[in-house]
Amino acid sequence: MAERTGKYTLSFPSKPTIAGSAAVVGKKEGEGPLGKEFDKIYTDSTAGECSWEKAESAIQREAIIRALAKSDTAASQVDAVIAGDLLNQCIGTTFGLREMNIPFTGVYGACSTMALSLLMGSVMVDGGAADTCVCATSSHFCSAERQFRYPLEYGGQRPPAAQWTVTGAGAAVLKKAKGKVRITKGIIGRIQDLGVRDTNNMGAAMAPAACATITDFLNDTSTCPEDYDMILTGDLGSVGSKLLRELMVKESGVDISSVHRDCGVMIFDPSKQDVNAGGSGCGCSGAVVCSYIMRLLREGEIKSVLFVGTGALMSPTSSKQGESIPGIAHGVLLSVD
Amino acid sequence: MAERTGKYTLSFPSKPTIAGSAAVVGKKEGEGPLGKEFDKIYTDSTAGECSWEKAESAIQREAIIRALAKSDTAASQVDAVIAGDLLNQCIGTTFGLREMNIPFTGVYGACSTMALSLLMGSVMVDGGAADTCVCATSSHFCSAERQFRYPLEYGGQRPPAAQWTVTGAGAAVLKKAKGKVRITKGIIGRIQDLGVRDTNNMGAAMAPAACATITDFLNDTSTCPEDYDMILTGDLGSVGSKLLRELMVKESGVDISSVHRDCGVMIFDPSKQDVNAGGSGCGCSGAVVCSYIMRLLREGEIKSVLFVGTGALMSPTSSKQGESIPGIAHGVLLSVD
Repeated sequence: MAERTGKYTLSFPSKPTIAGSAAVVGKKEGEGPLGKEFDKIYTDSTAGECSWEKAESAIQREAIIRALAKSDTAASQVDAVIAGDLLNQCIGTTFGLREMNIPFTGVYGACSTMALSLLMGSVMVDGGAADTCVCATSSHFCSAERQFRYPLEYGGQRPPAAQWTVTGAGAAVLKKAKGKVRITKGIIGRIQDLGVRDTNNMGAAMAPAACATITDFLNDTSTCPEDYDMILTGDLGSVGSKLLRELMVKESGVDISSVHRDCGVMIFDPSKQDVNAGGSGCGCSGAVVCSYIMRLLREGEIKSVLFVGTGALMSPTSSKQGESIPGIAHGVLLSVD
Repeated sequence: MAERTGKYTLSFPSKPTIAGSAAVVGKKEGEGPLGKEFDKIYTDSTAGECSWEKAESAIQREAIIRALAKSDTAASQVDAVIAGDLLNQCIGTTFGLREMNIPFTGVYGACSTMALSLLMGSVMVDGGAADTCVCATSSHFCSAERQFRYPLEYGGQRPPAAQWTVTGAGAAVLKKAKGKVRITKGIIGRIQDLGVRDTNNMGAAMAPAACATITDFLNDTSTCPEDYDMILTGDLGSVGSKLLRELMVKESGVDISSVHRDCGVMIFDPSKQDVNAGGSGCGCSGAVVCSYIMRLLREGEIKSVLFVGTGALMSPTSSKQGESIPGIAHGVLLSVD
């Protein structure tokens, strides 16, 4: 039974366990600094499918199947899968899950989806609505580019603040049973919009949301950044990460720079890989959290991570209609018991 | 603290209360048989905005504001709004909620969203994650047509099985406090896909999902259709409703025809309004449940409604790639205390 801590933060007394997780990525991600952390690397961007959208479904399904296997869980034991993605009508998720016959709760949080699904999974497990949940998400560079920007064949130029959508998926199995890595707290984000209109600068659009969520969480729990081994944002990239650290000092008087990391910065090596401001997409934090971060926690190298997924809640239509880009950030506290 | 009843059904012992609800619709819906039930009818399809997408956001926001007012709730008291819609990246919802400063959980269930948001809201309130939630959704005929089908200017012909996307929004305020209309049970749907590929026959694509969810619910709770005053589907329309009743008899040996109603059949008068197989869209069940059905419950005319929202989890892209249309149906049991 969850308890409210402060105005926005939820505490989960039963501390749902992440019993297993898996990450599946594409070739470029496999060549990055975290390459050896991932469970499977597809060197073919189609993953053997006949379209990039179907490839995205395939990698999300693959991540879920691997997470289930790693946590010794049969699909029939799962009470709910909580998942979503960036594609119109979330087809990466729905077609990926279609054959699984598991009760399905679709969530939409743009690139914050991994955090949102872990958060809603914790609410369900802690609140008795499920004993076992799967939380998952995915993104694919090629399906995202042609949907949000240009056909790949056009070869559009990318400005320095642009990010590279990660081809990847992450899945985590949450259980009521006791285990090593637990979700002890969570926070649902509030939409923040400071008027950024540049769709090639998502980091700037999302940083205010991350700032609000981290500030709310620290205030609600009366903690400071140093109480955590890591405050991990989803996909602010190098531009958004710098802005977040500045915003935190300016707006909240808190310096998070000693513990702040960003999945979008970690997943690629900008000196060797042509990704401009770093990685983005639901699969960015999905793949990093469900592999590298989970290993660090499992092996006890770090003991507490405030994971704050960040999402830009726009669409090509809203941008064409002159709208600014609303951001949102959802958080979960991952703790080693 | 939710309890699991049977394999798929959730029981909410705290019985979250629907403290207030509101429905806002367009002109055609206002001219239909339920016209006098709605809280506000916009006779201008733009609702004073400069695009249909912005109009959809405006009517969803209007429904939420009215539901809050009717339940004597300030926006600042709301712990979470759980909402979604059909537009790419759910912009109907995100831009509608942007200025509200309420923690926001995006859900995606296509036209099943009203049921999904009520279900997740119940999980949150019952599980202690929220004392007060807003559950909401919307759709707009003009924004849906140009996104899913053709530009309106094209004047595409509509076959008899096609449905008319409702311009409308529904919002309900869920509270932990005791009240008259409560949510006592819920069920998360499983994706069903019998291979229907006709995007002009959504009723046929969604009927198997409704059949599975209703069957699971009746089995889990050891009840029969006559135990409910109404089994209410979201937007199967006349074609899908007939198929559902046949499927229920054929697949499950259960005749629901005496208590089955469908929001898509109820919201328009096919003899006077040119809607072919009836209404559809998130706003269809959203508007009907949050007005007419809630009034019947509140006034004691009916005492128990199994509301099963139905959604087609396709996109224009998946259909162009030759995919069939997966359906899903989520359910909540609305009971008078």
